[in-house]
Amino acid sequence: MIKRFVDVGIAVTDLDVAVATYSHMLGTSPRMLGPEHYAYPGLKGARFYIGNATISLVASDDSRSPIAKFIETRGEGVNHISFEVTDIEQDMKDMTARGVTFLTRRPLPFPEGQVVFAHPKSTHGVQVALVQPEPGLDLL
Amino acid sequence: MIKRFVDVGIAVTDLDVAVATYSHMLGTSPRMLGPEHYAYPGLKGARFYIGNATISLVASDDSRSPIAKFIETRGEGVNHISFEVTDIEQDMKDMTARGVTFLTRRPLPFPEGQVVFAHPKSTHGVQVALVQPEPGLDLL
Repeated sequence: MIKRFVDVGIAVTDLDVAVATYSHMLGTSPRMLGPEHYAYPGLKGARFYIGNATISLVASDDSRSPIAKFIETRGEGVNHISFEVTDIEQDMKDMTARGVTFLTRRPLPFPEGQVVFAHPKSTHGVQVALVQPEPGLDLL
Repeated sequence: MIKRFVDVGIAVTDLDVAVATYSHMLGTSPRMLGPEHYAYPGLKGARFYIGNATISLVASDDSRSPIAKFIETRGEGVNHISFEVTDIEQDMKDMTARGVTFLTRRPLPFPEGQVVFAHPKSTHGVQVALVQPEPGLDLL
């Protein structure tokens, strides 16, 4: 079950330039994230904690990464939105039964828990991410 | 100043089909919104209140509307993300001084308050909306 909204993920070309823009706009400095933070290789980013949600900038120097391919096709912009769920495997089953398809058959591990991305074609053009945090971890 | 995150606005072709998909995914029914609810003409939508944020679907039968043009160019997907602000005119001035441009010179009225949209080219491909609610109104 979806528990709450967590994050907007924005694909950007130049992370430093985007961090400057969003730091001013959001009135706070981000937590910088290295490749080890992500479920897919070749990514780096910055996450702004603004209370009831996070805003994440994601960039990549690797042209094979999903972020580089997204920017090549669509330009910079919202890459995904994330929801915290209570039982990621059950939620995948429930959504699959209603026509949602996922990029991977199983959730992927990352340092804060598990994540799986819905295919945007099955969710009206939006790459919806389901995130189940490690027990006790507050994503916001 | 940005107070909190409010809304993800998703442009969709067929509102009823999208409402069915997202009602199941989010586990709740939306509030349906008619044209009178929007700052721009020709729009209709559905808003899901999920606690710490809202998820809005927006559609249009008018090919001249910004939503129809967005879908024609990019397909369905995230059209904008909205933040609640405390002083919309001052925030526009502050952001303009840092290079953000806006689609209109002044905020636009809508039933819940005032809204203004940043030009996505000035905010890394994201149409950022600033929303100042009527005094006492809780957008979430």
